[in-house]
Amino acid sequence: MQQTDTRPLTDDELQGIDAYWRAANYLSVGQIYLLANPLLREPLRPEHIKPRLLGHWGTTPGLNLIYAHFNRVVRQRDREVLFVTGPGHGGPALVANTWLEGSWTAAYPNTTQDEVGMGRLFKQFSFPGGVPSHVAADVPGSINEGGELGYSLSHAYGAAADNPGLVVACVVGDGEAETGPLAASWHSNKFLDPVRDGAVLPILHLNGYKIANPAVLARIGDEELSALLQGYGYEPYLVEGSEPAEVHQALAATLDRCMDRIEEIQIEARSAPEPPPRPAWPMIVLRTPKGWTGPQVVDGEPVENTWRAHQVPLSGVRTNEDHLRQLESWMRSYRPEELFDDYGRPIAALVELAPGPDLRMGSNPHANGGALSRDLELPAVDEYAVPVKIPGAEDGEPTRVFGEFLRDAFRLNADNLRLFGPDETESNRLTAVYETTGKQWQADLLDTDNHLARDGRVLEILSEHTCQGWLEGYLLTGRHGLFSSYEAFVHIVDSMVNQHAKWLKTINRLEWRRPIPSLNYLLTSHVWRQDHNGFSHQDPGFIDHVVNKKAEVVRVYLPPDTNTLLSTMDHCLRTRNYINVVVAGKQPQPNWLDWEAAALHCARGVGAWEFASNDEGEPDVVMACAGDVPTMETLAAVDLLREHLPDLRIRVVNIVDLMRLQSEGEHPHGLPDAEFDALFTTDKPVIFAYHGYPWLIHRLTYRRHGHDNLHVRGYLEEGTTTTPFDMVVRNNLDRYHLAMDVIDRVPSLGSRAVSTRQYFADQRARHHAYVTTYGEDLPEVRDWRWTPR
Amino acid sequence: MQQTDTRPLTDDELQGIDAYWRAANYLSVGQIYLLANPLLREPLRPEHIKPRLLGHWGTTPGLNLIYAHFNRVVRQRDREVLFVTGPGHGGPALVANTWLEGSWTAAYPNTTQDEVGMGRLFKQFSFPGGVPSHVAADVPGSINEGGELGYSLSHAYGAAADNPGLVVACVVGDGEAETGPLAASWHSNKFLDPVRDGAVLPILHLNGYKIANPAVLARIGDEELSALLQGYGYEPYLVEGSEPAEVHQALAATLDRCMDRIEEIQIEARSAPEPPPRPAWPMIVLRTPKGWTGPQVVDGEPVENTWRAHQVPLSGVRTNEDHLRQLESWMRSYRPEELFDDYGRPIAALVELAPGPDLRMGSNPHANGGALSRDLELPAVDEYAVPVKIPGAEDGEPTRVFGEFLRDAFRLNADNLRLFGPDETESNRLTAVYETTGKQWQADLLDTDNHLARDGRVLEILSEHTCQGWLEGYLLTGRHGLFSSYEAFVHIVDSMVNQHAKWLKTINRLEWRRPIPSLNYLLTSHVWRQDHNGFSHQDPGFIDHVVNKKAEVVRVYLPPDTNTLLSTMDHCLRTRNYINVVVAGKQPQPNWLDWEAAALHCARGVGAWEFASNDEGEPDVVMACAGDVPTMETLAAVDLLREHLPDLRIRVVNIVDLMRLQSEGEHPHGLPDAEFDALFTTDKPVIFAYHGYPWLIHRLTYRRHGHDNLHVRGYLEEGTTTTPFDMVVRNNLDRYHLAMDVIDRVPSLGSRAVSTRQYFADQRARHHAYVTTYGEDLPEVRDWRWTPR
Repeated sequence: MQQTDTRPLTDDELQGIDAYWRAANYLSVGQIYLLANPLLREPLRPEHIKPRLLGHWGTTPGLNLIYAHFNRVVRQRDREVLFVTGPGHGGPALVANTWLEGSWTAAYPNTTQDEVGMGRLFKQFSFPGGVPSHVAADVPGSINEGGELGYSLSHAYGAAADNPGLVVACVVGDGEAETGPLAASWHSNKFLDPVRDGAVLPILHLNGYKIANPAVLARIGDEELSALLQGYGYEPYLVEGSEPAEVHQALAATLDRCMDRIEEIQIEARSAPEPPPRPAWPMIVLRTPKGWTGPQVVDGEPVENTWRAHQVPLSGVRTNEDHLRQLESWMRSYRPEELFDDYGRPIAALVELAPGPDLRMGSNPHANGGALSRDLELPAVDEYAVPVKIPGAEDGEPTRVFGEFLRDAFRLNADNLRLFGPDETESNRLTAVYETTGKQWQADLLDTDNHLARDGRVLEILSEHTCQGWLEGYLLTGRHGLFSSYEAFVHIVDSMVNQHAKWLKTINRLEWRRPIPSLNYLLTSHVWRQDHNGFSHQDPGFIDHVVNKKAEVVRVYLPPDTNTLLSTMDHCLRTRNYINVVVAGKQPQPNWLDWEAAALHCARGVGAWEFASNDEGEPDVVMACAGDVPTMETLAAVDLLREHLPDLRIRVVNIVDLMRLQSEGEHPHGLPDAEFDALFTTDKPVIFAYHGYPWLIHRLTYRRHGHDNLHVRGYLEEGTTTTPFDMVVRNNLDRYHLAMDVIDRVPSLGSRAVSTRQYFADQRARHHAYVTTYGEDLPEVRDWRWTPR
Repeated sequence: MQQTDTRPLTDDELQGIDAYWRAANYLSVGQIYLLANPLLREPLRPEHIKPRLLGHWGTTPGLNLIYAHFNRVVRQRDREVLFVTGPGHGGPALVANTWLEGSWTAAYPNTTQDEVGMGRLFKQFSFPGGVPSHVAADVPGSINEGGELGYSLSHAYGAAADNPGLVVACVVGDGEAETGPLAASWHSNKFLDPVRDGAVLPILHLNGYKIANPAVLARIGDEELSALLQGYGYEPYLVEGSEPAEVHQALAATLDRCMDRIEEIQIEARSAPEPPPRPAWPMIVLRTPKGWTGPQVVDGEPVENTWRAHQVPLSGVRTNEDHLRQLESWMRSYRPEELFDDYGRPIAALVELAPGPDLRMGSNPHANGGALSRDLELPAVDEYAVPVKIPGAEDGEPTRVFGEFLRDAFRLNADNLRLFGPDETESNRLTAVYETTGKQWQADLLDTDNHLARDGRVLEILSEHTCQGWLEGYLLTGRHGLFSSYEAFVHIVDSMVNQHAKWLKTINRLEWRRPIPSLNYLLTSHVWRQDHNGFSHQDPGFIDHVVNKKAEVVRVYLPPDTNTLLSTMDHCLRTRNYINVVVAGKQPQPNWLDWEAAALHCARGVGAWEFASNDEGEPDVVMACAGDVPTMETLAAVDLLREHLPDLRIRVVNIVDLMRLQSEGEHPHGLPDAEFDALFTTDKPVIFAYHGYPWLIHRLTYRRHGHDNLHVRGYLEEGTTTTPFDMVVRNNLDRYHLAMDVIDRVPSLGSRAVSTRQYFADQRARHHAYVTTYGEDLPEVRDWRWTPR
């Protein structure tokens, strides 16, 4: 690792930056401890101290140091910097800094930049209903919460994409650096385009300890660490020390060097006729003590630079007079009287060190992406619709057609839309997008490669975490995107989705945060069609996972065919502040609805399909279906029943918008009870063929009047490598079984249905014999078509 | 990266190993394509070809090569090697090799080592109900399914732990190497103890392409790659080529070198008086063409060494005569007539190249861990029980007491039990374990470190993925373990849990696989006590996630106090083939049950608490609770109701084993309907205070008679940084609200309860004013104790 030995700061500059750092440290300690007496106008007394001491000092002085130095960079270079805080519990630092520079007060005018405001700032921290110990959505300038760790770097790269003027400073904690998502995301530099994207400057902050353990990367020696970072494709610079003046000079010099290098790389790439080879972007390793400038020794135990500095170094201040005095002298060591005036306002010399209102990092408009965001320009979706003269007469490939729509959406949105996925854009049949754009790629190229492009708008890396992190970073800074993934493996990002859902819920309640484009999932390789992958690839539980989040944030769609997929995606791409989960197969399957019917059906979200129903007057049974395969099996069951039991009155109900099933009071999309009752009846059996785990339907409908009549079929965790029809048979979701369910539940059919039921059971047995012998489905199943009546 | 230039193989050895490789390649291609005519006794005709061509050729020849060479290593050195196959879709290779060496037939006697057996082997592959394209549980010798990618290396390290004689050869695919979990798990070498653990030899197989994209690590150049691997702490060796004879010599020489180096490291570590510095363990980078030895060009497009070789290189063999002829000449290029005798048996020269029955990698007993597994020696759990004379009179710290039990369990099981966690053993108050053992750690040490030990049995790294992967590897090889984590962040491993649950379901159906020790979770930092972390740390949905898996595999426990936690953990550590999820707080909380009552209550899983009930005859209301905090709030609500409405007859029911709520037919622990009805009644209101998302209770009980009377309170995704009581208030789970729910649901209380209800509502309002002013809960809430009556 390189170290610089220049000393670029004049004495005045050095003193200024140190004062700024002391001010931020003072404000940080104040947040952790003080309920009153913020300026220490009188000696600290127990009643000035919060009753519950919650917060994390350890990482804070390092963050304050980095922030202060970036203020200098921003001011001197007039460059826009987005500050991403990876370390967990970095809250006190970022709250302190954004208040000091004025961003906090701009977002929360009540928290003025004076003694009263400082008191409020201190009190709210880790206080009931206040701000948490992490850099959450409440903190101006933030796009990354350090609650669950590991996503800062992928967020940073997502933010830099299509923002050529932006530098994203990303502080990576040495704890979070141990996580898988973070470890994978260093490789983002093989994708970032120096021409069209901005720059990311990672600062790996080694303060040595986590809660109770040393950090791995802090204990492998400089040589290995340097090799690792060079192996990740970076040019690492080391800044190390515990003597403030020395560290200030070294960090300033290193930041200058890194910013120069970023500018050189960008100028070279942007002016060269041919793209130069992938650059080694600079990054910084900053090795400073954990809990730096805090108490050295408490109760005889060393604290600074150990794991004991992780949280609250002095824990007994309310009851232990020694601790109280030690806290006071710690706070006074920052010389607050030199930093704040009589009214508690930061002194003019400090104010001057922060960038002006346009460039303050805490006010960076990219971090309030909704405010910058432009709506997508979408092509007229009906022009992509497939003609459907007779329902079910012809097959379509829903995702292939949607791919054409997406291709043209890319044409209309050259810098505002991206598609993310592990490695499946092509296998998910969205191939048409490559007519407009390529896959972004800066690593080595070979002649046999396909669709790779320096400035491609499709991002594929075999890391769902990295895809999700990039996409989140892109959305949080106001742009639009779509994640296409295997249904089973999207569980890999379950916890990231949780955190994003929580972020969305939080920003819904923050007046100054504007709504951001929705997080859109297209899950196309789904549970029912894993013909050669088998059991490990079969899991429809992501839906169950997301519906636990706040109803205001979650939307789930199961379009049954091509035109409904088009309508659904067109809708989702126009929304904000949602998580839209769309599940739709990539395999050829019947087209049921023409465009007009599809658009209407999707607008309603749920509805009876008249072409398939014969329930004039009143139905004997409702056959409900949600999902493409269950819809086909339901229609095939109806076909069988209409043929064998023509008097039976069947109503077919299809559900596109799953949340319509919930009660109105539970979800904004919930169907009013009267409409639900009219559609599903309150007293007739409902045979419900559902895409996922059947009990979810019960959980969504348990308040509905007709709930006890619901009989749900779905995935029962029975799977293997097998044919499409065998999969539904194994889970009792097949047409024969659904038809048998109807016979079992409609007592009025009486004995005349006994032989029909037996015929259906025999067909299932015949299927089993056939598929295990020949390895494919019965011809009459494969070739089945809906019979229009 | 180092390259060897010795040529250790004699001509005979070279020809032998090449023949073995050809045989495995032949058997692999046969599996992908052939339904009949396995020995090509007649020219291939369309009816010999499977109707659905499913499988993956690309990665197969590389795996076959590595396996053949490890056979030589095992034979020559008489060393036990466990082969872990990371690349997805490596199934054909491992199925072929285990058949060739005899392990497959040992597991599946019907699949004989002759023409008939070969035919069956070919047919079953990717055939309905047969074996999938990955190295699933069906494959003898496997502990890792290449379905969802990224866990091979952590599995390998988990398997090596406490197996000092074992070498785990771990093939890492260049696709899976992009995943976060894999990227993090390289650092496992900072934990593995060369004295007491075995060795892991990673082979990073760069065949260059994934499904449709180049692999990142294949396109960063040898210099960066070498730096990366050295940075990860390894000594990388490069084997590269496409000329078989050259690659055979290079790979043989490199494997010899690596095995020598492993032996040197182990001898040095095991004989040194002081542990030597952490070694750089050897590893191999193998760069061979994707789809090597397969078709070079198909329909004019290059295939070998491109992404086109990923799956089935010739896709039209049933209908396209050219493809059929090309397949035949491809298969004949392996000269099967030289490899198999007239009966289809591998020729003697091949048989001799495989290790004998004791050392065949496909028969490695560690890979069928249940067969090797010893039960834990557990101390008498009742000796750790806390005395409880009056229910609720005193507080206990459940995890601290369990830590003492665990401490002594470590004492009794020196090589058979491990504890895993991100960084929280101490903060989760299991600190007593450090009296017996330390945290395993081979990286640099400092004086300020605590509890670190070369041979520690606690493993902490801030990567839930790595913890989970290590634990799975440890369990799959027959040992016992426990994962202690934050409840919210265990979602990080949702998808790994899915895969493990699927593995367990599969091995339940495989006669030759023996049950393995259960996967045990202790989630102690739970949703209700995230006092300083706030919203991002609040998510009880892991329970919802696991209950979607097969009922035979999943168990969920919510012990409400110290003694019930002890009893639950003692039980879980004795079980096999389950996933046991235990949620229990680490904070001081009332002890309710003495040991006798706790043991009985846990054995029943659910029961009425007589000390808290006054329902002689028949209750007016049932107050049910599951989870420690909901139990406390329920008891506090009962206390209020007994005081204010003494005539009200209340039955308190506590649920420890959540699966008791499901119907008998749905889950093996399900309470029979009659018992459920007797406990919960069929007609009285049930106010149910639940730890997690309330709808899960509805989903579990929707078939129960009294379901419509259930009124469930739980986590509503309302959270922030706040006090414990404010958290329950925000989610309507607090004592006052539960008491109000009772009043609202028991009509017989009539008007006499109106003023009481208002009093409870007023108390909630008072709480709000107090907590936002003083930052702590109302004294009467903090100091509340159950009133014995």
